[in-house]
Amino acid sequence: METEEELEVPDDQSEDQEVEIPEEEPVSNEEYLATLLETARAAARPLSVLTAANKNKALEAMADALEEATEAILEANEEDLENFGDDPDRAAMADRLKLTPERIIGMAKQIREIVALRDPVGESVGFKKRPNGMRVGKVRVPIGVIGIIYESRPNVTADAAALCLKSGNVCILRGGSEAIHSNTAIAKVLVEAASSAGIPEGAISFIDRPDREIILDLLKSDKFVDLIIPRGGESLMETVTTNSTIPVIKHDKGVCHIYVDVNADLSQAETICVNAKVQRPSTCNSLEGLLVHEKIAKTFLVPLGKALTEAGVEIRGCPKTCEVLPDAKPAQDDDFGKEFLSLTLAIRVVKDMDQAMDHIETYGSHHTESILTNDYSRALRFLRQVDASAVMVNASTRLNDGYEFGLGAEMGISTTRLHARGPMGLEDLTCSKYVVYGSGQIRE
Amino acid sequence: METEEELEVPDDQSEDQEVEIPEEEPVSNEEYLATLLETARAAARPLSVLTAANKNKALEAMADALEEATEAILEANEEDLENFGDDPDRAAMADRLKLTPERIIGMAKQIREIVALRDPVGESVGFKKRPNGMRVGKVRVPIGVIGIIYESRPNVTADAAALCLKSGNVCILRGGSEAIHSNTAIAKVLVEAASSAGIPEGAISFIDRPDREIILDLLKSDKFVDLIIPRGGESLMETVTTNSTIPVIKHDKGVCHIYVDVNADLSQAETICVNAKVQRPSTCNSLEGLLVHEKIAKTFLVPLGKALTEAGVEIRGCPKTCEVLPDAKPAQDDDFGKEFLSLTLAIRVVKDMDQAMDHIETYGSHHTESILTNDYSRALRFLRQVDASAVMVNASTRLNDGYEFGLGAEMGISTTRLHARGPMGLEDLTCSKYVVYGSGQIRE
Repeated sequence: METEEELEVPDDQSEDQEVEIPEEEPVSNEEYLATLLETARAAARPLSVLTAANKNKALEAMADALEEATEAILEANEEDLENFGDDPDRAAMADRLKLTPERIIGMAKQIREIVALRDPVGESVGFKKRPNGMRVGKVRVPIGVIGIIYESRPNVTADAAALCLKSGNVCILRGGSEAIHSNTAIAKVLVEAASSAGIPEGAISFIDRPDREIILDLLKSDKFVDLIIPRGGESLMETVTTNSTIPVIKHDKGVCHIYVDVNADLSQAETICVNAKVQRPSTCNSLEGLLVHEKIAKTFLVPLGKALTEAGVEIRGCPKTCEVLPDAKPAQDDDFGKEFLSLTLAIRVVKDMDQAMDHIETYGSHHTESILTNDYSRALRFLRQVDASAVMVNASTRLNDGYEFGLGAEMGISTTRLHARGPMGLEDLTCSKYVVYGSGQIRE
Repeated sequence: METEEELEVPDDQSEDQEVEIPEEEPVSNEEYLATLLETARAAARPLSVLTAANKNKALEAMADALEEATEAILEANEEDLENFGDDPDRAAMADRLKLTPERIIGMAKQIREIVALRDPVGESVGFKKRPNGMRVGKVRVPIGVIGIIYESRPNVTADAAALCLKSGNVCILRGGSEAIHSNTAIAKVLVEAASSAGIPEGAISFIDRPDREIILDLLKSDKFVDLIIPRGGESLMETVTTNSTIPVIKHDKGVCHIYVDVNADLSQAETICVNAKVQRPSTCNSLEGLLVHEKIAKTFLVPLGKALTEAGVEIRGCPKTCEVLPDAKPAQDDDFGKEFLSLTLAIRVVKDMDQAMDHIETYGSHHTESILTNDYSRALRFLRQVDASAVMVNASTRLNDGYEFGLGAEMGISTTRLHARGPMGLEDLTCSKYVVYGSGQIRE
């Protein structure tokens, strides 16, 4: 799964859209959410004890059903695309919103890959015998009910539902209003397929009303929901942080850096920097700030500048960078620390690694930070002293990813320090309970 | 460390107390907190990279200093005790508040035990080589800045400071207003000893003003604080849940049950039930609700009732219990699900294990649940289907504890599902970062 940050959709846009209210039963948003939450909560206990075989059967059914419903899903998507319009400034977003038969096949394929992953529920961790004879350890259990609030890409509906189901969690999905018809169509297919395969009602819950007040109420429903995962832009993060009484694991922005040290392999460094910036610039793990040791600034930046320019990258440089690369734009203050998510790169020449690490501490977002060097002790010091969800030596920041790290599919990249940090795989969608096998032990 | 729930102190009591405002510099609460937060945040990075030897040296100095300062601490404690008064209804609380030379030696001993524990910071978890040749794994790092809000017992000041220091975390401590003089005296000693041993200023931060608005501001300081741990009663939990924009790990109440199955070893069951209720009734892992299979109700409850009564326990029973134990008080509706924290026990006769598990799901607080049985398959089903921070077979609920589980000292028992659930030891005071050892890898 790609881990894109989708910043541009204001989440209160919903108000401007036409809302389809069912004609027969005009249920208030409050009642609507209350029913949904109760059904979801009630599904948590039966879902948590399903076997991997049960869950896999349902996932297979969901994948098949998606493919079979291609036509209906594309029709719904067409409606979203029409509402979205063809503003050329939002062409990238429109592209993310757009579904094709291939993309629907891709969603089904993704679900089948989740079938192949190990079910983490029930795994034992660290059992040991205590001096009093009792055996104690942890067993992985589902978190419970997870609310996922996301923007733009409709495939998240299928991915998130499948990951939650496989890990025994009820999901409550709330997609962006711009994709509401596509998401509703996809969710309907998934819910029906899961239900026909014996999954309890409510295990996959989808909020098909775009009203913003429903999000705010959801965020206060700590009696029903155990975790909120927001995936999206700054305004969504702010809304969730400010309003949630439920624990939150954020998938927030990435302002990622590479520091090219004085004795890096410069040819390798060029390949890595170009890859990190260019391979998929709209993702949260792409390179936004490059820091270069002053002693190699000229040798390294002249050919790199050429390669980046050829790849269409706009460079915004500090004064020393601009001396070496006269075509670069002078960086403004806010260019350092900015998540461009596009073919733009801020470059700064630094006097040593400590200045680079200070820059990262000041401007970074603790997402992904990489040093390129052949100096052993500096490599280890960078790994130890820099704080981020992933720190790297001689590797592209783009590699901070669930597949690349061997987790299989991921829910996204967590920027929260607690519980799960970095790529969030199936195991991170579980928590644990202590289990004690006793034989009459009491507290002395 | 004991894990007591201290429910009785309303946290806004502070307003009634005399506040000592420093005479020379009347600093507003806002400025006061801002300075404290900045100093604490600045300490996080240097503290995170200290060696275990550095930290242990400081802990030893803190333990020594506490013992040396016994007289000053007792004087401060005397002041708190005077303010607290001698209301006989609050005698148990006054006892928890009271310090003696022995209790101060106990605090120092506790710190020395933390010295002996393994430092989790820097430990590697699950490193593996990926197909592209890079090595990836997690390394434990401190969480950062941890705010701990607690009530009543002054020894928490020393315990929490020592656990945070050992795990490389800055702590911001906020004790109850009833213990403010004792806590201030203890914190002063700890801060000075740590500082003289080279620990960065602010690493142990103590809020020595009792004003409630400071808590509310602290809870919104997500730019400075990474985690809030509240230890105390319901009103504190409510305040924190509602107001915090910082992740929270609660140490909330325990409504713990034991279910005595039809074929339990009844003599062992009696010992376990008495231990779970009587051994230390004021703790969160003591027994509050006993569920007994109807077929053994009479055989089991008659001798148990006698033993409990002899131990001073008041029984509140369902109608069937009262039939068997005519001296028991009839249970009111709210007796099931109540955290008595005293020598009171609610007893209900159930028709089978499923009814017991339903009762636990309805009335329990997901803290500690135990089944007493010799039936293998029911034991395993109970462990699988009951959801709590600890589930047990044939053991006293009082054993849900960091020492008993082999973690060493604990911060308390987490009732939050995420990150740390159950006894929270040093390891749970760390998070992780991914570390990648590359050799030129890029994203294909």
